[in-house]
Amino acid sequence: MNHDTICALATANGIGAIGIIRISGDDAISVSAKIFEGKNLEKAPSHTVHYGFIKDGEEVIDEVMISVFKAPKTFTAEDSVEISFHGSPHIAKRILEVLIKNGARMAKAGEFTMRAFMNGRIDLSQAESIADLIASENEASRKVALNQLKGGITNEISFLRTDLLNFVSLIELELDFAEEDVEFADRTALNQLLDKIEAKLNSLIESFQYGNAIKNGTAVAIIGKPNAGKSTLLNALLKEERAIVSNIAGTTRDTIEEILHIKGHAFRLIDTAGLRETADEIEAIGVKKAKEKVENANILVYLADSATKDFSEDIEMIKSLQRDDLKLIICATKIDEVSPAQYELVENIFRKEISQDFDFITISAVENQNMQDLKDELSSYVEQLKSEESNVIITNQRHFEALRKSLEAVNKVKEAITFQISTELLAYELRNALEHLGEISGEVTNDEVLGNIFSKFCIGK
Amino acid sequence: MNHDTICALATANGIGAIGIIRISGDDAISVSAKIFEGKNLEKAPSHTVHYGFIKDGEEVIDEVMISVFKAPKTFTAEDSVEISFHGSPHIAKRILEVLIKNGARMAKAGEFTMRAFMNGRIDLSQAESIADLIASENEASRKVALNQLKGGITNEISFLRTDLLNFVSLIELELDFAEEDVEFADRTALNQLLDKIEAKLNSLIESFQYGNAIKNGTAVAIIGKPNAGKSTLLNALLKEERAIVSNIAGTTRDTIEEILHIKGHAFRLIDTAGLRETADEIEAIGVKKAKEKVENANILVYLADSATKDFSEDIEMIKSLQRDDLKLIICATKIDEVSPAQYELVENIFRKEISQDFDFITISAVENQNMQDLKDELSSYVEQLKSEESNVIITNQRHFEALRKSLEAVNKVKEAITFQISTELLAYELRNALEHLGEISGEVTNDEVLGNIFSKFCIGK
Repeated sequence: MNHDTICALATANGIGAIGIIRISGDDAISVSAKIFEGKNLEKAPSHTVHYGFIKDGEEVIDEVMISVFKAPKTFTAEDSVEISFHGSPHIAKRILEVLIKNGARMAKAGEFTMRAFMNGRIDLSQAESIADLIASENEASRKVALNQLKGGITNEISFLRTDLLNFVSLIELELDFAEEDVEFADRTALNQLLDKIEAKLNSLIESFQYGNAIKNGTAVAIIGKPNAGKSTLLNALLKEERAIVSNIAGTTRDTIEEILHIKGHAFRLIDTAGLRETADEIEAIGVKKAKEKVENANILVYLADSATKDFSEDIEMIKSLQRDDLKLIICATKIDEVSPAQYELVENIFRKEISQDFDFITISAVENQNMQDLKDELSSYVEQLKSEESNVIITNQRHFEALRKSLEAVNKVKEAITFQISTELLAYELRNALEHLGEISGEVTNDEVLGNIFSKFCIGK
Repeated sequence: MNHDTICALATANGIGAIGIIRISGDDAISVSAKIFEGKNLEKAPSHTVHYGFIKDGEEVIDEVMISVFKAPKTFTAEDSVEISFHGSPHIAKRILEVLIKNGARMAKAGEFTMRAFMNGRIDLSQAESIADLIASENEASRKVALNQLKGGITNEISFLRTDLLNFVSLIELELDFAEEDVEFADRTALNQLLDKIEAKLNSLIESFQYGNAIKNGTAVAIIGKPNAGKSTLLNALLKEERAIVSNIAGTTRDTIEEILHIKGHAFRLIDTAGLRETADEIEAIGVKKAKEKVENANILVYLADSATKDFSEDIEMIKSLQRDDLKLIICATKIDEVSPAQYELVENIFRKEISQDFDFITISAVENQNMQDLKDELSSYVEQLKSEESNVIITNQRHFEALRKSLEAVNKVKEAITFQISTELLAYELRNALEHLGEISGEVTNDEVLGNIFSKFCIGK
């Protein structure tokens, strides 16, 4: 593995009070020492910070604080240096130029983390979790990424993999003694282990639905007849959110989707941009368009005006939008305008006509009545996705696929045992399962996979 | 002075590999220790870095590196801590929340630097130079700010101020013995010192023109008749610049002005946005508009098509745009299309008709001929602004004004001596001069001035 010295800006682009340039590699300290006027960095103890100047020959580039980290107890497990400078992009550029002039080279995207992985400091799923952590925009995604960083998924499967590895050795031993027809590996015990692995894989695979909700948010379509109160509802829901969001600097926002956070989970309100402008959406877009909108939603919030007498159009619309994997919330709006008897009647009408299970709530967005009920309903959708069996939640498509392939391979092994297939084939299937299990933590990997993973990182990480 | 504990994000907004939160104040270390799982920060030596976790009660917020700096050898001269976390804005927000929950408060804009000043670590002009350094977009502004940070202007005037202070003491002693008509302060020596101060102030005041060019760039208007070659010239000039700029991440660009860097100095090409779209600008905007454009320019680059026979319109236009403080460069374009004799003729025509001193150059933007001549001409404008007498360059309007007021006050003192005015009035004028000289370094200041200065800083600095 290459330990040449790499450098990059590690902090966000733009002007800040402080910027950090990170350097790692065999010569990280000596290269930095060459351009630093201050304490002799080569003699500085690890994990110490020093005041001084970055110089290009005789010219002072900036007054800096420089931190020295000596291998192996560093992020990359290599000698590392961090330069904290006055955070102008121009100064960052100058310092990087001087570093390169003195023997460092620009790091590729994710190269610091890749080195941490290659040097055995972290496994592959941990490396991936760092990118997730940096990108985390809410509590749920932060927590899952942090858990992963602590080794979550690897801990869950690594001891199972070790047990399986033992069986593989025994089975392969049998192959060596093939002519003697011995059986070193206890098939019953192997079957028990495979059952355990299967259960664990299933629980991890199941967690992906929740993981996906965490990582990508839950898609919510809000539909209703003209004047059912969509615009008022959206404003009421997003008012609080806006206040929160404006406090977090640097968050960017999709223009088409509005995002609502409830209890640390993100809900993407689909295609609300247009919705907020034209109140009479159904009239404008028709059933076909409404269907398209609901197609990618996890939840449909259907708004029905409590004050209406005739719900036949609403019922027709709901029936045409229903889907097995779509949570349906029917929401009687404007309850401030009607009596409780009226909206009980409304619920009865829908209960009679809509066969699918649905949640019924009554709200007045104008008077902010029962808005919490709606939020609780949304929230409960995500909560029930949580697997009770596993603390670890899969959010990563690559992990999900590796787990599915592992499960497939495990099932093939089980089949092989059931049908008493040849030991050779059994060994092959076992190896296959092992390999897929090893993919997650990166024990088994290849350059293409690694390239794919780390190229998605930002430079400087 | 308040030493309560302040915290803020110190790195640029947005997503980065690393983010830094900075904490300063009497309880900076104990507050940080409360939320940190890892080494006991209160026992950690100064200038050391520690690995661990930021926790909100039992909940882990992020895995971090934390640096401890103990007073007085810190930026603010107070106990300080820097938390290096996974650079998600969401995580920044969570860590700041936990810090505040545990006794810190959000820092105001510039509050860290203000503390450095209030605690006597740096003087006021150094504090200002930090903001300049962070905002520096090119070599010239970086160098000037850095020189200032090293105490540039203060060094230049502080010993003069000390000498003056001695005289003030002597003069005030005279006041105590007023009845005895003694003269402790040698008026000739005082006059000599005042001459020295005057010369220094003049040279610093003069440097402001260059300083201004450094800080705000030099405004260049490019004017010419339709088809004189503006668009081609602009493209040729900016092509290289674009390539450079695209390499510096995070630089933002005014949409109306294009900025060109030559030898580390910035040139603002005025109102080129429209210019680049419509070639026939003069026709479109007329003389009046052209005048408006040139009004704020330091340099007028007038393009004349070498292949033209009749320059009367050009000459008329130039005459109407001439100004004493406007450097004029007449630029014969498209020389690839004509003979050298032709553009010598062009020069002669202009020399005969234009009385003002101007530089004449010939270019072909298409064939990239003599483009360097144009750049050299632009560059020489800035170079000649450089004062030869002073190494220190004033870029700050506040300093400029304080210097001017000091000069005025010094002149009044000289007058007072010349006209042998009362010792009382002389003492008053001397005090006045001292005060203005002290404003630059912040030896004399008031809350309003400080508030003004630091409110322009970014939060976290």
